[in-house]
Parts: sequence; structure tokens; C-alpha cells
Amino acid sequence: MTACTIDFEPVGRRGECQNNESLLACARRLGVGISSVCGGKGTCHSCKVQVLSGTVSKPTPNEREAFTSQELKEGWRLACQTYPLSDCKLTVPPESMTTTQRIQVEGLEVKVHPEPPVRAYRIQMEAPSLSAPDADADRLLQVLNQQHQLNCGKIDINVLRVLSTQIRSWNWEFQAVVRNDEVIALLPQSSHQLGLAIDLGTTKIAGYLINLSDGLTLAAKGVMNPQISHGEDIISRITGVVHSPDDGMLLQKLAVEAINGLCADLCAEANAGIEEIVEAVVVGNTAMHHLFLGLPVKQLALSPFVPAVSRAVDVKAGDLGLHISPGAYVHLLPNIAGFVGADHVAMLLATEVLPAKIPVVALDIGTNTEVSLIHDGKITSTSCASGPAFEGGHIKYGMRAATGAIERLRIVDDIIQYQTIDGAPPIGICGSGILDALSQLYLTKVIDEGGRITDNHPRVRTYKGQREFVLVGKEERGGKPAITITQHDIRELQLAKAAIRSGIQTLLEASGCPEDKIKQVIIAGAFGTYIDVASAVTIGMLPSLPLNRFQQAGNAAGMGAKLALISLTKRAEAQVVASRVKYIELAGAPGFDQTFIQASYLGQYRIIDGKREEID
Amino acid sequence: MTACTIDFEPVGRRGECQNNESLLACARRLGVGISSVCGGKGTCHSCKVQVLSGTVSKPTPNEREAFTSQELKEGWRLACQTYPLSDCKLTVPPESMTTTQRIQVEGLEVKVHPEPPVRAYRIQMEAPSLSAPDADADRLLQVLNQQHQLNCGKIDINVLRVLSTQIRSWNWEFQAVVRNDEVIALLPQSSHQLGLAIDLGTTKIAGYLINLSDGLTLAAKGVMNPQISHGEDIISRITGVVHSPDDGMLLQKLAVEAINGLCADLCAEANAGIEEIVEAVVVGNTAMHHLFLGLPVKQLALSPFVPAVSRAVDVKAGDLGLHISPGAYVHLLPNIAGFVGADHVAMLLATEVLPAKIPVVALDIGTNTEVSLIHDGKITSTSCASGPAFEGGHIKYGMRAATGAIERLRIVDDIIQYQTIDGAPPIGICGSGILDALSQLYLTKVIDEGGRITDNHPRVRTYKGQREFVLVGKEERGGKPAITITQHDIRELQLAKAAIRSGIQTLLEASGCPEDKIKQVIIAGAFGTYIDVASAVTIGMLPSLPLNRFQQAGNAAGMGAKLALISLTKRAEAQVVASRVKYIELAGAPGFDQTFIQASYLGQYRIIDGKREEID
Repeated sequence: MTACTIDFEPVGRRGECQNNESLLACARRLGVGISSVCGGKGTCHSCKVQVLSGTVSKPTPNEREAFTSQELKEGWRLACQTYPLSDCKLTVPPESMTTTQRIQVEGLEVKVHPEPPVRAYRIQMEAPSLSAPDADADRLLQVLNQQHQLNCGKIDINVLRVLSTQIRSWNWEFQAVVRNDEVIALLPQSSHQLGLAIDLGTTKIAGYLINLSDGLTLAAKGVMNPQISHGEDIISRITGVVHSPDDGMLLQKLAVEAINGLCADLCAEANAGIEEIVEAVVVGNTAMHHLFLGLPVKQLALSPFVPAVSRAVDVKAGDLGLHISPGAYVHLLPNIAGFVGADHVAMLLATEVLPAKIPVVALDIGTNTEVSLIHDGKITSTSCASGPAFEGGHIKYGMRAATGAIERLRIVDDIIQYQTIDGAPPIGICGSGILDALSQLYLTKVIDEGGRITDNHPRVRTYKGQREFVLVGKEERGGKPAITITQHDIRELQLAKAAIRSGIQTLLEASGCPEDKIKQVIIAGAFGTYIDVASAVTIGMLPSLPLNRFQQAGNAAGMGAKLALISLTKRAEAQVVASRVKYIELAGAPGFDQTFIQASYLGQYRIIDGKREEID
Repeated sequence: MTACTIDFEPVGRRGECQNNESLLACARRLGVGISSVCGGKGTCHSCKVQVLSGTVSKPTPNEREAFTSQELKEGWRLACQTYPLSDCKLTVPPESMTTTQRIQVEGLEVKVHPEPPVRAYRIQMEAPSLSAPDADADRLLQVLNQQHQLNCGKIDINVLRVLSTQIRSWNWEFQAVVRNDEVIALLPQSSHQLGLAIDLGTTKIAGYLINLSDGLTLAAKGVMNPQISHGEDIISRITGVVHSPDDGMLLQKLAVEAINGLCADLCAEANAGIEEIVEAVVVGNTAMHHLFLGLPVKQLALSPFVPAVSRAVDVKAGDLGLHISPGAYVHLLPNIAGFVGADHVAMLLATEVLPAKIPVVALDIGTNTEVSLIHDGKITSTSCASGPAFEGGHIKYGMRAATGAIERLRIVDDIIQYQTIDGAPPIGICGSGILDALSQLYLTKVIDEGGRITDNHPRVRTYKGQREFVLVGKEERGGKPAITITQHDIRELQLAKAAIRSGIQTLLEASGCPEDKIKQVIIAGAFGTYIDVASAVTIGMLPSLPLNRFQQAGNAAGMGAKLALISLTKRAEAQVVASRVKYIELAGAPGFDQTFIQASYLGQYRIIDGKREEID
């Protein structure tokens, strides 16, 4: 076997695979973080990759177990079991990645015909003279309208402020960027027209720099949301603003500054200028949407939880302090309700659920989990207060997805197999690891259906009057305190998983859709991407459906923002989606308390005639 | 004769007239500054007033000389010659005023049907509920559009930022102010909708607070333009900005801050809130227009003197830093050319010249003098570089119209009769005084037609090698240097008056309109209001026409701004006026040098077959 060159996408890392090196070993040597819980034994199935081109070794029995024959045909393989036979190009899907930067920027790529809201027109003007001393702006509009049959009558004040100077420096040849009836930017002949799509999450901000002419992503990057210093979750930020209204504009500024920094990085990466960005789309949950625009949030937090605005908003970048082309507009997709925001609309847009003839559940798991059910051409949505447990909050050793977090976990007898982010010594446990732990503890009967920690495992101990399960012992940590899952943690997780499942159940009941009719469950968002779906089904957080009906969509909200950025049709579709949604407030749904209690038990179940029936 | 109550308008002073007190004496006692050069002898005709109601003494021979019988019928009288016989209401026209605050805010009042660009709608909304938790803004638009048959889809971002809080504080009952398809302001039920009209002059800024519902002026005030510290005339300000571009935004800020202060004063006077101001109109010459908007001015100063923009501009108050309702728009009337700006358009609008069937000349005298000729349904305009002489610049003892300036002057033998502003001891001479002086010196043959100071007057002396005429001697000033008019001053004034007259002549020639066909000459602006028209005709600055064809229009630009503020029809008319104007650049006009030389001689003349013919 000779050395082959392997191209890992989308991270863009490329290098030689040495003799007898598996794709996983090669990836690790090259610094591409591919997940591997079982340590390369082919049993955990966490190192899935897709071979796009090139020849590789034949599938092993482990791989035949991990994939359907169709998936194998599509090139899906376990990196630990596969050896290249020629130069290869691979895709490492988000769920197989274990990178330091655990900010989700990848997602479903949906191809659309570019049809952006702005268009650039090439202009060639004569220099003025004493016999034709007409004003610069007047002549530009005249040339633009006559040569391109437009009816453009407005010029942004920021454009007007540089027009005379710029068009002279460009010797009267340039591009005029028009949006509706307004000139929003002037660019030199050689410039591209770029767009910025932003998924403004409570914790993380993902940004995409897009070429508006062809819709291609030039650069993508994620950063932390600096508003975290004013509260980790939405409710604490809203409470802060209600008590000290000046904080509202402070939070607005923090978000905008983070986006400005992100935008500058994206431009540097793509070798572009910020003035080439002539349109932006921002999505976020309703509270983030409001805080970004500087809207009041008090009414969001008080029943009946009313947004200041739901319909799509277009606002000048300059009015927000956003450093892109100063005449550019920022488009915010519509919100659905106080706790179902534009990010959920974007997710529905990206996952193309609207024409669904078959029942589809789409959910974005976070501190608030937004769920939509598309059934019979109707969309019902709700918001579940799932809390911060799956983001590591309120969990004794919980932490965010960062270096040293346990992100995958299996219990084999009294051995705990785990994987940490970056392979660093364990310092805590993040959402996907917590979910695995709960599932494994339930499967190994360390906890019962009610969530009670039993005595039947050597790792169970009582510490400060509370039962807990030791994941990583003191001795394994060189004397540091053991990393444990406590009885209290399990109660928190039960509440979280019950919130999500009862949200799904409520929508199914309200729509008269039987659970087993669901043909597809789309799980979006960073947490949803990294979780082991089987674990989530095992504990009853997600309905008991064949695993192939679940789809982990990556940052679908970000993808939706990109679609709305490059396509007016998609933008209109978002408005249709938002206006067609029937929002269901869980607090007001009949029998919700019962549904919630049913959902709080561990294990797979379904509801038949209003009763919980276990599934073995 | 019993004591009568006299009401002096528009200053609004009211008081008792004592026995045997003339209207002039009464005015003086009450502090109403009425001009009087001859000291109450009835000979100077500078104390004209119009009696609107009440009975007064019969006209004296002096008054029969001063007025036509038609004018007498209309109530025109000399205040020094008239005694009240009952309670009276008087108008003191701008040209008869001699107030400290020599900033022209009065002008022709043209009544128009109010038809403002903004309209307030009364809104009554239901509070939201869990079963109807629609967003505040969405519901507002729904209510607005359904109840009032509008198609309003936008809400200003500043309005959006306060909407949820405000409408709750107003208990869901309020007014929504709409402009085109946009909600630009929210107001409580009891608020008025006000407008702000601004005449932004190079030297002075005049502001008017208007009730948009009825078009009435609630308050009017003038302030100095603080940009003066960066150059007294436009050219020096432009030059400053060209050399140091940051000064552009500094000048922008200075103008805006002055207007903000003016606006706060107007609101205080009218007991109104700045948030009630929901529309503004600003007019100024092209350079002031550009500096106010923050537009580049370099190209204005270089041939072919091209404005950045001529067409009307609508810009958000917030984008300019103007403190009125933050979502309000500022409308700037169109410019005509680099040196004929929106203020001239406003003046043409206010003087209603457009449908003129008879030839009309309209001019606004200043450092630049804009002239328009309306003839045969066509408008030709030009700009004359008349320089600062008539504003006191480049004149040895020249000064602005402020306390102590000689503003009226007659030479009777070797006695100089003069009047100063506020009756203070003379410290210099302002524009109208300078014009009188030139005319008087010419009439008394102290200077000849060529402008040369002759020897034939005891007040002529040679001082530091230059001939000069002593207006106020050293001994009259308690030992301070004599106030004089020098040979150099006269040369400056000749250039200024030649510039104005040759501009008029060029338009007449270009339009094929004989001078004596001019039926009306409208003189606008502060200087134009205070001058003695007879003096201006005497020296040949204005054409030799019967004096009753001249009309001093006061601050017509400010009036035009008011009209455009309250009437969309007038706004459209302004655009028509601006677009119908044919601008004539004097530098390119055939035979202009000859025309200018002809105009530089003193004395009345007309041009016949291209030759100057004196009029005795």
C-alpha cells in the first residue's frame, strides 16, 4: 500500500495517510478531531465519515452493523475501520467532529437559485460640464433608471455622503447596488456583492459570509455570545434588563460588537472588504431578536408573553451599529411567539418542512426547546422550558462543550468508557455526555424508571447525604474530586427531558396525529447535532421510532438564515411559514400536567388512549 | 381723546396709547422698534404701518405723498403722522422694524390648505391575552390598516423600540403617526402633530414651529449660525472642509446643534414637546444644504460647480442628529444648481411666481445673490457673486445688523442724519446703511458716476493716502476714530451692486425680456427686507422701475419652507419649480464682461441695443 493523500472536509485539512493507518488514525495525526468513544474498536459507531471520492478497504462486519447497505453505497464508513487504497476525499459530518470550537456552523446545505434582494448595476457616467452641471446623485439615478429600466428614486444618506467623492475617484465607472427603489451602496467595478447570515444564539453566534451572486459560502465561523456575562439564559438576561433598562442597549451593543468582530474575521478569511457586504440576515430566538434590535423585553417575560414585533423587520445596518456597507439593510426573519423565534422559522425554512405531506417533527433543543409538528399541511409549534441541564447548567459536574468535557460515555460492567473533547483529561460533562450517562445508567439499571439511583452498582455511593454515581474516580483524576452524576442531577435531567417530550406529545394530541405516524424527526442545533439519538430515545426524551427516522440537521437555523439571505422567494416562504404556524402555549394546553408527568419517567413509551405504555 | 389700546402685530405687543401720542411714540414707549430716520417729521417714510382695525386720524399731506390712495385705503400709514381715535390693531411690516434681533423670521403669509405628509390616526387596541398573544407591532398595523383602510407595513426602528412600553403606559389608546407606508411616531391621545420649518442661512437660522393640522405658526425664532466661526462666507467654509475633511462633519454638527437649541426654544415658547414634532423641512443655499446633510462640498467649489444632489431629499431626523420625534423625516427642498439652492426654490414657492403670466424678477440678496426671472412661463436663474460688502464685510466700518449699526442714513447739506439699531451710539454701518450711504453720496455728487470721491464736500478728507467720507466725526464719537466710507469701500460696493445688476441683465437678455416689461421685482431675505429700495434703484443696483413694482418679501425662504412643511401639493410644486428652472452660469454667458462693466457705474440706467443709457 503506498501513501495516499486524504482530504478531510469541511475542515479543509489535507495530508498523507501513512502505511497501515486507518482514516481515524490519519485524522488524529493531522489534528482533525474525529469522535471515537470505543477507542477504534468499531463498536461505538461515533467515527462515521462519508467517502466522497477514492477507493477504500471493504466494509468490516462492524461497519455492516453500523450502516444500511444504502448508506454503505453512499460511502458512509467508520473511520476506525477503514483504510484508504487511493487518494480520498472525505466529509466528516458535524456529529462525528470533536473540535475545540464546538460552535455549530455546518448544517444542511439546501441549494436555491440566488435571487437576492439587492442587485448591482454597472454604471458609466459622463463627467459633468459647465453646459451640463447636473447634480451627481440626480444624474446617477437618471443613468440607472434609463439604462436598466428601474424606478429607483432614493439614495441612502450614507451613500449620498460619499457619492460625489467616490464616483470621481472611480472615474465615473462603478457599480450601484439597488434594493427595491433605493441605491444602498456604491462599489468599484471589480467588487463582489456579499451577504452576511447570522444565527444569533443565546450562547453562541454563528456567522456566514456569502457571495450573493452564486449563493456560495465564502467563510463560516462561530464565536461565543458575550451577553453571557449578563446571564447564561434568556430569562436572566430579560430580568436584568427589566430591572435596569439601560442594560438593554448594553446587551444590544455587546451582540452587535461580537457580530462586528465575527464579520471582520469572515472578511479577512475570504479576503473581502466589509463594505462589500450589502445585505444581512439575522435569526435568533425572540428574546435574542429583541435584544439585538434594542426592543423592550419586559412583555416577553410576563404572561401572555407577547413579542414587540413578530413580522419580518428590515432595518438599516447603521441604525444597529453593524459595520457592513452603511446603507445595507439587515433583515430579521419573523418570530412566531414570545418563545418561538425567527431561528425556529429559519430552521423550518432550511429543513423544507412546509410542503410536508407526511407528519414531521422538527425541534431545536436548548434552554428553551422549540418544537414544530407539520401534519396535514398545518404547522403547530410550541416552546418547552427544558432548562439549562443539557447545556451543563444545574448539573453538579455539568459544563459547556469545551476542552476536557466528557462528550460520549458508555458503561460496560463497572468500566466507564468515555471520550472528552480534545482528548484532554476529564474536567466535567457536557450535554451529549450527560444524555449518554442518563441512558447508560437506565439501561444498566443503576437508576430505575422513576429516576431513583439504586444500590446495585459498585460505583454508586452516598456523598454528603446524597446518592451519586461515580463517572471518573478521584484516583483516576490524580486526587481531584471524583466526577459524578448525583440524584439531584438526574431529577434535573428528568424535568428537562419531560419538558421536551411533553411538548412533542402536546402537539401530537392537538393535531390528532398518532406518534407512530411521524415519518421524520429533525433535530437541529448544536446540542441536537452532537447527541446520540439512541440515548435520547432510550430515556424517552424522543419518541420511540426507528432510528433512521431521525435526522440531525446541524445548524439548520444558520442554514435558514443563509437561504433567506440569498433568496427573496425563501424570505417570502419564511413569512408564510411564520403566519401559518398555530402557536400552542403549553401552560394552557388541556391535560398538560398529566402529559408532563408521563414524560418524566425514564424509558421508551408511547401514549395509548391517554395512558403511558412502556416499550421494551 | 381717551386712551386707546393698541395691538402691535406680529410682535404681539399691546398697550395703551396716551393722549396726544402718535403711533410711533406709543410704539417706542412700549418698546416696539419702529424705524424712523427723520425723527418723526413724516419725511423719511420709514415708519410705515398697516392699520388692520380701529379708527385713526386722517392722512397728513406727508402720508398722501408716501402712499397711493389704494394703499391708504388698505390702512397703510406713517406711524409718526398717525394718532389713534379708538382701540387699534396694527401690523408693523418687517421693513419698518428695528429690533435688536435682526434675524428675519417674518415673511409673506401665504395661506394653503393643510395637507401634511404625515397623518395621525387614533388607535384603540385590546390588551393581548394567552389566547391572542400576537405581537404588539403586528397588532398595531392590523388595527391601523383595518380601521383606517391603510396599507402601512413599516414601523420606524426607534418607534419599535418604545412601542410595547408606550402603548401599555397609554392603556392601549393612543395616536399612530403615519407617513406613506410607515409608522413614524406614537403619541398620546391629547398630543398635537407639529412640524418644524428651518431656513438655514449662511449667517442666520430662522425656525418656525407649525401646527400641522391647521398650518398655524405657534412660534418663530432666529439664531446666528454657529458655523460662522469656521468662515463668514460659504467659500471659506467650503475651502476649510476641502483642506480638512473632518471639518465637514463638525460643521454638520454645529448646524444641527444650533437647530436643536432653536427647536427646544420654540417648543418651550409654544409649550410643546419635541417628540410632537413629526416632520421637518429645511431649506438653505446649496452649500448650507450640503453641509447640513454632511455631503461633500469640494465639487461645489470647483468648475463646473456640481451639487452632490439637487432633487428633494428625505432623511430621518435621527440620521442627522436632529432632536425631534426620532422616527420623523426631514425633507429638504430641491436645489437648482451649485449656487442656487433650496432656499431660492422655497422663495419662489412662497412668492407664488410660477403661474406668473407677467415678467417677474425674484432675488435674494446676500454674499451670493440668487436671481430668477419668470417670463413667458419659463424660469431662468443665476447666482451672482455679490460678496460680503452688503453684509458689512470688506468695508472699513462695516458690521452686521446689530446694536449700534447705522442702518438708515440721509445727507442733508453737510449734516448726516442717521439711525442706529436700538438707537445706540454708532459703532459701524450695516448693509442697509451702506446702501443708503452710497446712494446719498451719489445723489449729493460726493462721488461721481465712476465711483470716485470728489473734493466737493466738507466731510471728504484724505486719510492715510486714501480719500474717505466722514459719516460720524471723531468729536461726535467722544474721541473715538471717525466712522467713514472710504474710496476702497465704494469700489467694493460697486463690484457688489454690479454683480447683482449684471445677473438681472443677463437673465433679461437670455430670456429676450425687455427691462421695462418687468411688472414685479420681489426682494427677499433679511438684507433685502431692510434696504431702502429707492437707494438701491438710485445707484443702479436694481432696474429703474416705478417703486411700486418692488415688493420686499421678508423671509420668503422661511415661508416657502413652512408651505412645503404643511402641504404635499406645495412640495410637489417645489419639485416642478426646481425642474423647470434653466440655470444660467454667468461665467459662460455671452457678453457678460461688458454687462458687468456697464453695471458697475453708479446711477440709474437701462440697456438699449446693448448700450448703457443713463436715466436722469
